[in-house]
Amino acid sequence: MTRLNPHISVDCVIFGFDGANLKVLLIEREKLPEENPDIPSDILKLPGNLISDTEDLDESAYRVLRELTGLDKIFLKQFSVFGNPNRLDNSNDLEWLRVTSELPVERVVTIAYYSLVKINESNPNESLLSRTKWIEANEIPKLIFDHNQIIDKALDALRKELRTEPIGFELLPKKFTLRQLQNLYEVILGNKLDNRNFRKKVGKLDYLVALPEKENGVNHKPAQLYKFDKKTFYKTRKDAGFVI
Amino acid sequence: MTRLNPHISVDCVIFGFDGANLKVLLIEREKLPEENPDIPSDILKLPGNLISDTEDLDESAYRVLRELTGLDKIFLKQFSVFGNPNRLDNSNDLEWLRVTSELPVERVVTIAYYSLVKINESNPNESLLSRTKWIEANEIPKLIFDHNQIIDKALDALRKELRTEPIGFELLPKKFTLRQLQNLYEVILGNKLDNRNFRKKVGKLDYLVALPEKENGVNHKPAQLYKFDKKTFYKTRKDAGFVI
Repeated sequence: MTRLNPHISVDCVIFGFDGANLKVLLIEREKLPEENPDIPSDILKLPGNLISDTEDLDESAYRVLRELTGLDKIFLKQFSVFGNPNRLDNSNDLEWLRVTSELPVERVVTIAYYSLVKINESNPNESLLSRTKWIEANEIPKLIFDHNQIIDKALDALRKELRTEPIGFELLPKKFTLRQLQNLYEVILGNKLDNRNFRKKVGKLDYLVALPEKENGVNHKPAQLYKFDKKTFYKTRKDAGFVI
Repeated sequence: MTRLNPHISVDCVIFGFDGANLKVLLIEREKLPEENPDIPSDILKLPGNLISDTEDLDESAYRVLRELTGLDKIFLKQFSVFGNPNRLDNSNDLEWLRVTSELPVERVVTIAYYSLVKINESNPNESLLSRTKWIEANEIPKLIFDHNQIIDKALDALRKELRTEPIGFELLPKKFTLRQLQNLYEVILGNKLDNRNFRKKVGKLDYLVALPEKENGVNHKPAQLYKFDKKTFYKTRKDAGFVI
């Protein structure tokens, strides 16, 4: 058993997309050995943990993700650090952390990551399954500590990254319709996009490849399926310029 | 006197541009109370320090910057965290840190920032002046701990940010020539840009405003001076799209 480091933690904002909504994977905090009405276990938190003394930070984050989603190769980005001296000030939350970690925790700086997963491929660890929930990103309840703030900042980082990196495809199935792609951009950016402009714009992208297939099992006219061609994207981008 | 936190530090990569070269502000590590030939004081490091127990992370970084540059309003960006369990393994460096901090330091996670300053406006604290040096970014000697790695990653982050944000202007004087602007992009991106294409491209930018002035005190034909119009930049960008 490795020793946990009581000063540093990692927390992961795991985003998923179900075709219509952007969701975040949250987990009910661990039950205390003895029931305590002030510290109920049905309060939600971000997946995360104190790091172990022998782990590098990214390793800790990957471990948390693997436990939670059953996925190994996953998009993971360290986007910020939260270290306000008062961030653990909620005495019930702090008590919960001290009891579950069995450590005299005082100040914890947390390294925050966000991760993008395909909801239908994720497969949480059996023992955690009953405690995890996908919650819509704009309906997050009050979480422990400063976890709501961490999600807000992760959303900002995700929006910014979406302007320059093809990360949206991490959230889509391998084959997707243009409608799904547009929905994804709309929910992340938080505003409707004009259908015609959107189609016109993506029609010009040589790294969006139309497949000789249509969607099936839908009760409307089946739409054309597309895939993202990563190689072409990076080749095209190399030739492109930069903002001044 | 506030207590230092022996587990967390901030380190700042302070970039400056002298019109031709990209430079990094480094500082000789503090002398030990007793001379020790194994731990010389002329080894360079990034400006940084253990955080104090009552400070938020950004506060610590701003404090370090203020001490070093005399500047208050400064571009500062937290870009990564370094927490490898072995990052302090150099025993001389570790001994130096223990003696100067008077703390039983074991593992330190450092929050890394980069900062952009106008070299001619910076004005280091008198007591630090003799210990600070601007060194060309591609001629950095071996620094303490993993500070060389931190600079490499800061350069990557700076290059990436330059593609989407108008941060280059933080490094230029308020009034600059197109030659200076092009030099800046060339040294940061690490490659020559075609003069004609560059002029053509920047000629179209409505947020680069030609001033009714030319440079003076130069021994060549004085070039037109320009300024960056931030307001116009952000207005223009709002209308622009995003990469898919």
